[in-house]
Amino acid sequence: MISFTCDYNVGAVPEILRRLAETNLIQEPGYGEDSFCLSAKARIRQAVGCPDAEIFFLTGGTQTNATVISAMLKGYEGVISAETGHIGVHEAGAVEFTGHKVLPLPSHQGKILAEELDAYLRRFYADEACSHMVFPGMVYISFPTEYGTIYTQEELTRIREVCLRNSLPLFIDGARLGYGLMSRSSDLDLHELASLCDVFYIGGTKVGALCGEAVVFPAGNAPAHFFTTVKQHGALLAKGRLLGIQFDTLFTDGLYFKISRHVIDMAERLKTIFQKAGIELFIDSPTNQQFVILSPAQMDNLRKEVLFEVWEPLPDGRFVVRFATSWATTEQQLSRLEELLSEC
Amino acid sequence: MISFTCDYNVGAVPEILRRLAETNLIQEPGYGEDSFCLSAKARIRQAVGCPDAEIFFLTGGTQTNATVISAMLKGYEGVISAETGHIGVHEAGAVEFTGHKVLPLPSHQGKILAEELDAYLRRFYADEACSHMVFPGMVYISFPTEYGTIYTQEELTRIREVCLRNSLPLFIDGARLGYGLMSRSSDLDLHELASLCDVFYIGGTKVGALCGEAVVFPAGNAPAHFFTTVKQHGALLAKGRLLGIQFDTLFTDGLYFKISRHVIDMAERLKTIFQKAGIELFIDSPTNQQFVILSPAQMDNLRKEVLFEVWEPLPDGRFVVRFATSWATTEQQLSRLEELLSEC
Amino acid sequence: MISFTCDYNVGAVPEILRRLAETNLIQEPGYGEDSFCLSAKARIRQAVGCPDAEIFFLTGGTQTNATVISAMLKGYEGVISAETGHIGVHEAGAVEFTGHKVLPLPSHQGKILAEELDAYLRRFYADEACSHMVFPGMVYISFPTEYGTIYTQEELTRIREVCLRNSLPLFIDGARLGYGLMSRSSDLDLHELASLCDVFYIGGTKVGALCGEAVVFPAGNAPAHFFTTVKQHGALLAKGRLLGIQFDTLFTDGLYFKISRHVIDMAERLKTIFQKAGIELFIDSPTNQQFVILSPAQMDNLRKEVLFEVWEPLPDGRFVVRFATSWATTEQQLSRLEELLSEC
Amino acid sequence: MISFTCDYNVGAVPEILRRLAETNLIQEPGYGEDSFCLSAKARIRQAVGCPDAEIFFLTGGTQTNATVISAMLKGYEGVISAETGHIGVHEAGAVEFTGHKVLPLPSHQGKILAEELDAYLRRFYADEACSHMVFPGMVYISFPTEYGTIYTQEELTRIREVCLRNSLPLFIDGARLGYGLMSRSSDLDLHELASLCDVFYIGGTKVGALCGEAVVFPAGNAPAHFFTTVKQHGALLAKGRLLGIQFDTLFTDGLYFKISRHVIDMAERLKTIFQKAGIELFIDSPTNQQFVILSPAQMDNLRKEVLFEVWEPLPDGRFVVRFATSWATTEQQLSRLEELLSEC
Repeated sequence: MISFTCDYNVGAVPEILRRLAETNLIQEPGYGEDSFCLSAKARIRQAVGCPDAEIFFLTGGTQTNATVISAMLKGYEGVISAETGHIGVHEAGAVEFTGHKVLPLPSHQGKILAEELDAYLRRFYADEACSHMVFPGMVYISFPTEYGTIYTQEELTRIREVCLRNSLPLFIDGARLGYGLMSRSSDLDLHELASLCDVFYIGGTKVGALCGEAVVFPAGNAPAHFFTTVKQHGALLAKGRLLGIQFDTLFTDGLYFKISRHVIDMAERLKTIFQKAGIELFIDSPTNQQFVILSPAQMDNLRKEVLFEVWEPLPDGRFVVRFATSWATTEQQLSRLEELLSEC
Repeated sequence: MISFTCDYNVGAVPEILRRLAETNLIQEPGYGEDSFCLSAKARIRQAVGCPDAEIFFLTGGTQTNATVISAMLKGYEGVISAETGHIGVHEAGAVEFTGHKVLPLPSHQGKILAEELDAYLRRFYADEACSHMVFPGMVYISFPTEYGTIYTQEELTRIREVCLRNSLPLFIDGARLGYGLMSRSSDLDLHELASLCDVFYIGGTKVGALCGEAVVFPAGNAPAHFFTTVKQHGALLAKGRLLGIQFDTLFTDGLYFKISRHVIDMAERLKTIFQKAGIELFIDSPTNQQFVILSPAQMDNLRKEVLFEVWEPLPDGRFVVRFATSWATTEQQLSRLEELLSEC
Repeated sequence: MISFTCDYNVGAVPEILRRLAETNLIQEPGYGEDSFCLSAKARIRQAVGCPDAEIFFLTGGTQTNATVISAMLKGYEGVISAETGHIGVHEAGAVEFTGHKVLPLPSHQGKILAEELDAYLRRFYADEACSHMVFPGMVYISFPTEYGTIYTQEELTRIREVCLRNSLPLFIDGARLGYGLMSRSSDLDLHELASLCDVFYIGGTKVGALCGEAVVFPAGNAPAHFFTTVKQHGALLAKGRLLGIQFDTLFTDGLYFKISRHVIDMAERLKTIFQKAGIELFIDSPTNQQFVILSPAQMDNLRKEVLFEVWEPLPDGRFVVRFATSWATTEQQLSRLEELLSEC
Repeated sequence: MISFTCDYNVGAVPEILRRLAETNLIQEPGYGEDSFCLSAKARIRQAVGCPDAEIFFLTGGTQTNATVISAMLKGYEGVISAETGHIGVHEAGAVEFTGHKVLPLPSHQGKILAEELDAYLRRFYADEACSHMVFPGMVYISFPTEYGTIYTQEELTRIREVCLRNSLPLFIDGARLGYGLMSRSSDLDLHELASLCDVFYIGGTKVGALCGEAVVFPAGNAPAHFFTTVKQHGALLAKGRLLGIQFDTLFTDGLYFKISRHVIDMAERLKTIFQKAGIELFIDSPTNQQFVILSPAQMDNLRKEVLFEVWEPLPDGRFVVRFATSWATTEQQLSRLEELLSEC
């Protein structure tokens, strides 16, 4: 079977496994004070172009979202998100568990619009009863979004402007950050992205690592004692080296970007294969998650050799399905998929 | 430098690294539904002698404690712990963050006494104002404790009896479980331990893994939807295989116990070295954490080549220091320590 | 000035003040164990027709909602509510503060539909990813709703059936319960309402009391140690008699219903006055909150003598405004309003 | 029966009931924006000598403690309290419910010592592992304490100095503040007390009101949007006038202090009666709670006509019992007690 179900269905890129083996017996302090973490942080500071950035390594996305959001919100504040945002839908209420409401904005293929954010905030502050309501305390977006789409530099700049006018920190969930940055449609690089938000993270789990997300506070603006907050949220590894080694490897010789570019290349090839086969795109995604529309017959036929994820049923009896490429996706796998599609 | 600071200062046992490499390209589902997790659970069920046991893999100890405790307590309940318990002291308030109080009992070298637990419960229920107080909702102990000590079968049985009489689940923090079970002083095996509690975990991080704790509900008594609770707490890895592979390896051919026995052998040798050198033991610990008393001069001398952890100052100017052995501790390291001590 | 801004802009009905004065020096235990609370509970048990009902007195609506909801939900569950529900909009995130998400359903003039609830639940359980989402744990409705509307017996019965099929407790926010029951459009009495839900409360604050809401668990199905939960939420009064005396008075000789009927009579008269004056109703509300549409000129004119609440602007430049009647609303006040409207 | 069980076993002072009746029909806005609240705040500002003070009215003590504490702490902080402090023992874990740990210091008849606070803080910051622990975030004391004792000006000043050196806000629980200030042993007045802390509250419930506590931020230093936090905690009354009227009455013509002085006079008389009767004082309390030691025979004898609270058993078979005076305690009641004691 060939699996396109997700970008976390195999292990880590070989460079990471090799480095774990090489460093295995080096004795280092725990809890992220090891030399690998220090080196990784230095490399990331350089990659994001922020010499004052503060960086923390956590293990997974839901954990990172809840920890960052609850550390940055006041008790009476909530976090604004597209109604399709990962924090509002697929994190089992992790944000609410920390005591905060997720304030939904309309989703446009996963994205929020600056003007709708602005209108929401104007309405909120104009409401005489607003002191009885949850105050907006930060804005959460994902890049790429849950639908594989990405913000342009102009869109992000305009959202950021609304945030600044309203003193709202902007948080970018970068679980698949590399794929957004390496997308052929992207006009943003990592320096620019870092300069357009208050905090973001560089996803490792879905971009070639075994686990790990690197939270970046570009201006050295981490909340006081954020280390302790990380510990309190159960997000601190005793063997912090596991994260340090991985991110140090990913940010050596641009490996993170090379992986991402390969994954995008495979996704573009995948899209071409679908288009050639006359398969309709549900969303014209510029990143590694491709959403296409298949009939039940097509799905049954493919399933003999291929795994993919059913996203949602359509009224006409067909289905939206998701195919994701990963660091391990190969030309051979795609060629076989192409053959199978031609037989459908 | 030779480090005895802790049991998490190197990577994983070679068997784990090898297995990670071998399985790296096998495509598997995420979130713990991979075949490695399934296999690891089957092996653990056998090792604990509980065919109905439900098992969950989390990444670290603080996370595991907070997730298990908050899932098992009612809103109005707290968790009883020795006042030196890890959850009450060194987890940055992770339990309180979930809304629950830690109810302290006196510590006897890290252990609680069944009779003091019983007396506490009798006093609580006899108090006319008890409905204005936090109800005891479960009992937390660690095995071994934070001071390296272990409960005997009789002690544990008596605590369990008090728990059963009061309908209180008993939770055993086994972050270093292997060292407790393999201690030369232990009269408990894993089957017996599993039969004497309602939930416990088998620590991986500190017993040879890169990360990971295996939570075991021996009677298949996991709280409803515990998977979702794990997700909500940010404790679910997308690449759950990372934990499955490690525990599957640790529970193949008794590796977990072999590692633990080596660590105990090294700890016993360490204790002998201290005793020969006339160094006073602060606690006669039967596990891998050895607490000894050193003078400032001795500490300075050792520090040229050896790392250890200062635990606490004594009134006489000397210090309690902790030496921990790990899977990577070697005879050579101990021999060199012995030489250095003879020079002090 | 005549105020129609809300139903909490004066003090209590005279019977309550008189009773407070008469009982003032009687020595009674604190924390709700006084004889007034016991008597009030007995009277309420009779009024709701549930001899086994468990009853608790809390001080206000937001407090009651958060306390009941968090006591009845498991950690991984959220509460379903109309998107206009008070708990989702105007309680400053009190439910989220206790760790739970409010799961919104579409609002139909404040009401949810049984079929939409059913469809939501079917979709949820059919979703393969539902274990990564917040589980529905109970259903919250308000009677009357935030828009003054009420459920018919059939509507409520059908909602209840969906709840029972899905093992979801149904909670009715009765902050203005009396107005719903005494509405000329209502086909439900208190016995029937109590039999159609798992928990509800009888609002005192907005129905003639100084403060106070009586939570009723009709089947004696209060969560274990709910008293302690009330205390933990800061919802327990030391002088619980303040609530006991008020509810004992309200449920003596049907005073609660008499007050409610007067308020409804005044509201119906108010509606007639608006209709005669050619004022458009925004919602044809059957209870004490009347929502009408006024032009800015009409609003300016009225404001010389009358207070009311601006609800929301309309696209055509006019405004939805709310007029509420209360126990203290008089015929004279309404006659004066009628005169003023004739002058607009 | 004559009850000395507590200071909340009758209703309110007559002046409050009268004022409630007089103002009953005056139409006023809800949620504490009524003219009575405004007037009460102005009077309290004058009484505390802080023209910039911000004042909020809440209904009860546990509610007030949890709301103030959680609003002032960062997520990673806890609150320091005497181990006998009300928040740590008799509030059903209300502080922990908001996510924060109560950090206990030794109790000296209910009081903490400045030097022990100082030593605790020094030890905390000297601990290398402190970033894994709950940070001290504020200091809570009660005045009078749960044992009726009071801090001298010097003691309070020294505690405050330690707080200032460590940037820790000092919070004074004044549930019975009047009795502390009017105690014959007190060398503090309300101006001084207000100048020696960052936030405190003036208890109404136990000093003649039906309910209500007035939180005072002497320097206008309330946390941002504290009103919304109060709402979120379910601590905001719709008919806020109930609290405004009571505090406006209590702070007109010094009524609060007159009530308090009467209660203290009765308590001193009570103490004299015990001493004359040869009854041993358990604590020589300078306020309205008197703790004496009675034999079972004495208790049985008194119980025929007198109610009191059993505090704790003593090893010798006798019991500590608490007698409390209140605004309604009369000379006649005390004379009858004296007679009964002479008969024991």
